[in-house]
Amino acid sequence: MKQSQLFPNKSLKEAPKEEESLNAQLLIRGGFIDKEMAGIYTYMPLGWQVIKKIEQIIREEINSVDGQEMLMPVMQPKEYWVTTKRWGDFDVLFKIDLGEGKELVLGPTHEEVITPLAQKHIFSYKDLPFAIYQFQNKFRNEPRARSGLLRGREFLMKDLYSFHVSEQDLDLYYDKVAKTYDKIWQRTGLGELTFKTYASGGDFSKYSHEYQTLSDNGEDTIFLCEKCKLAVNKEIIKDLENKCPDCGNEDLKERRAIEVGNIFKLKTKFSEAFGFKFTDSKGVEQPVVMASYGIGLGRLMATVVETHHDEKGIVWPKSITPYNVHLLEIGKNSTQMAQGIYGACQKAGFSVLYDDREMSAGAKFAEADLLGISVRLVISDKTGDKVEWKERAKKDIELLTQEELLNRLKAYYQE
Amino acid sequence: MKQSQLFPNKSLKEAPKEEESLNAQLLIRGGFIDKEMAGIYTYMPLGWQVIKKIEQIIREEINSVDGQEMLMPVMQPKEYWVTTKRWGDFDVLFKIDLGEGKELVLGPTHEEVITPLAQKHIFSYKDLPFAIYQFQNKFRNEPRARSGLLRGREFLMKDLYSFHVSEQDLDLYYDKVAKTYDKIWQRTGLGELTFKTYASGGDFSKYSHEYQTLSDNGEDTIFLCEKCKLAVNKEIIKDLENKCPDCGNEDLKERRAIEVGNIFKLKTKFSEAFGFKFTDSKGVEQPVVMASYGIGLGRLMATVVETHHDEKGIVWPKSITPYNVHLLEIGKNSTQMAQGIYGACQKAGFSVLYDDREMSAGAKFAEADLLGISVRLVISDKTGDKVEWKERAKKDIELLTQEELLNRLKAYYQE
Repeated sequence: MKQSQLFPNKSLKEAPKEEESLNAQLLIRGGFIDKEMAGIYTYMPLGWQVIKKIEQIIREEINSVDGQEMLMPVMQPKEYWVTTKRWGDFDVLFKIDLGEGKELVLGPTHEEVITPLAQKHIFSYKDLPFAIYQFQNKFRNEPRARSGLLRGREFLMKDLYSFHVSEQDLDLYYDKVAKTYDKIWQRTGLGELTFKTYASGGDFSKYSHEYQTLSDNGEDTIFLCEKCKLAVNKEIIKDLENKCPDCGNEDLKERRAIEVGNIFKLKTKFSEAFGFKFTDSKGVEQPVVMASYGIGLGRLMATVVETHHDEKGIVWPKSITPYNVHLLEIGKNSTQMAQGIYGACQKAGFSVLYDDREMSAGAKFAEADLLGISVRLVISDKTGDKVEWKERAKKDIELLTQEELLNRLKAYYQE
Repeated sequence: MKQSQLFPNKSLKEAPKEEESLNAQLLIRGGFIDKEMAGIYTYMPLGWQVIKKIEQIIREEINSVDGQEMLMPVMQPKEYWVTTKRWGDFDVLFKIDLGEGKELVLGPTHEEVITPLAQKHIFSYKDLPFAIYQFQNKFRNEPRARSGLLRGREFLMKDLYSFHVSEQDLDLYYDKVAKTYDKIWQRTGLGELTFKTYASGGDFSKYSHEYQTLSDNGEDTIFLCEKCKLAVNKEIIKDLENKCPDCGNEDLKERRAIEVGNIFKLKTKFSEAFGFKFTDSKGVEQPVVMASYGIGLGRLMATVVETHHDEKGIVWPKSITPYNVHLLEIGKNSTQMAQGIYGACQKAGFSVLYDDREMSAGAKFAEADLLGISVRLVISDKTGDKVEWKERAKKDIELLTQEELLNRLKAYYQE
């Protein structure tokens, strides 16, 4: 992609003043997102590249635990929400009044859709277990939508739902998904900062689990057991007598953190509300046992920004860098060679953002640092017949021939 | 995918009685979609495979005309719709009342978002032309949502918007997109049935263009010029004096058809409403010239079903078949060989729906015909050490060795 043709083709010097959060400031300045209203953002082409990479990582991992991808509607019937008693209780529900007493819900989650849908097709223990998931917009009328992509009123989410004959079977699958979640944090660059965290189970269970990523700008407070690599949300730390629930360690570290995912044992709350039963191997009817598992895609991207930046801008992990290469052409004499490198990198299978704009070197370098693409290449009068290689996360600069460059790119992205 | 584990793992004998349309009847019976409410459907795993293939074909083609993919919000500010005078005029608008005089729109289209967004970043003729697109849910409160996926209240759409310095530049790009649309119809199996059709230009232009696919169940009536391979929508045939607008042919054929796409020259309607101007090469401010181009993904899928079926079920074009292969294991002695073929096909890169269910041969064959996967393979006591090959669209049956099978699959899907 030639940067002169990218929308937008120039970053902003300043973020909107009302935008308090660091993630939104950097993402808006870089042209990754645009703010439409409080808590409602457009993903611009650069930001959408990042989201698509995050989506594909999540898809591969959820497919590996036999999740089946589908798409449920945004609009949901009121009566399902009345059935689960959440029409009145879910306090951030967007409702649509169609007149003549008809009302709809804009889904903040999809238990109210998937439970009656599964009920149409699942009758016997032979039909269980199964798990389905989707990437779909969610809607919550958050009164405090001021944390950029961390707390949106409209946001993209991966939601997975699993269905089981028993709590034992649910526990087995739940642990499998928990391991898969760890892989997702590893693959998106959040692995070392993210901890499985005991949290309130809400209406469903005594405890649920969240995944919390350490970040000074996090909205949550957790107590971290460094031995067990797990944490407890402040909301239940007293219930656990200020101890690690696994090892009893009392030396827990208080930290700010961002919730990047959650997993809930719903058990039979929804199946009982809808009367969703299966016939077990002895011919007896039982309520289906359920769980749900969420990851917000924009929130994950924002968490990466909150935890992967320096004073100059974003430092994308290479797994979700919007382009593999940011190629900077400095000076008019560099055009021919830059075009050659642009073509050669693309031919070798690497995506390239090619800065072909007429702009000062300083402005180009500053913008490359702001955008944070993992590998920066420079071609200028000073680089001769070689290409300057710099990784965004490192300070070293090297001069490489075209052949060395392509080998280095292969090695870098295969690591 | 083992069919015993697919959700749902069994097709329905009958479609819901209130479902009048053929597309929804077949798609619901086959487990491709589920009806949540009038005009609102879930894409089940099988249907979602088809949609993802359609999406990828459209993505490749729109990328080839330099469309940049992004994602705009569903929720849109009322004031933008007031600005374009469509708050009152757009008669199927879903509105959300937030109280305290605040209202939102659920986007039925995105001109009201993209125009002010582009305005933030486009200032000069040097920033033009550019084109952006998205795949996003659209919402229209259709009073007559009874044509299955053909007329939804919530539906997935590819919408592309282009921005130009002049009508001449718009015309050039418009023609490029028109050619790309033809490729999309060809690649999704609708090519021979689909015709560029003159239609009313609405508020924007004298004429717009639709793409209409011949189908007896279509909601539209068109007049087809067989010489020019183009058509005129009934709504403007009198304005054109019942003649082909290209060759003057008066022998036009009246046909029923389904609108699968449309392209609109918006010209300066939206840029003038928002005061969206650029500075031209002479330093003079001019309004930006715009066009929009839509394709409904579910509607395209439904149109394929309406035009590609027989009395037994759907006949998917191979480009959008939900799986490459439907492998039927008949009888318990076939399990081992079926598992071998299942693995070999997947290893060779073909997706397989493996019918491993305990069910009569007749029921399996009937369901395979209903689902309409392009290639059916059968392994039974009768096939010996070979595999029975049958294409859904043909009657011939052949017995192939495993090696012949893999070569045949490669040839079939490369054609």
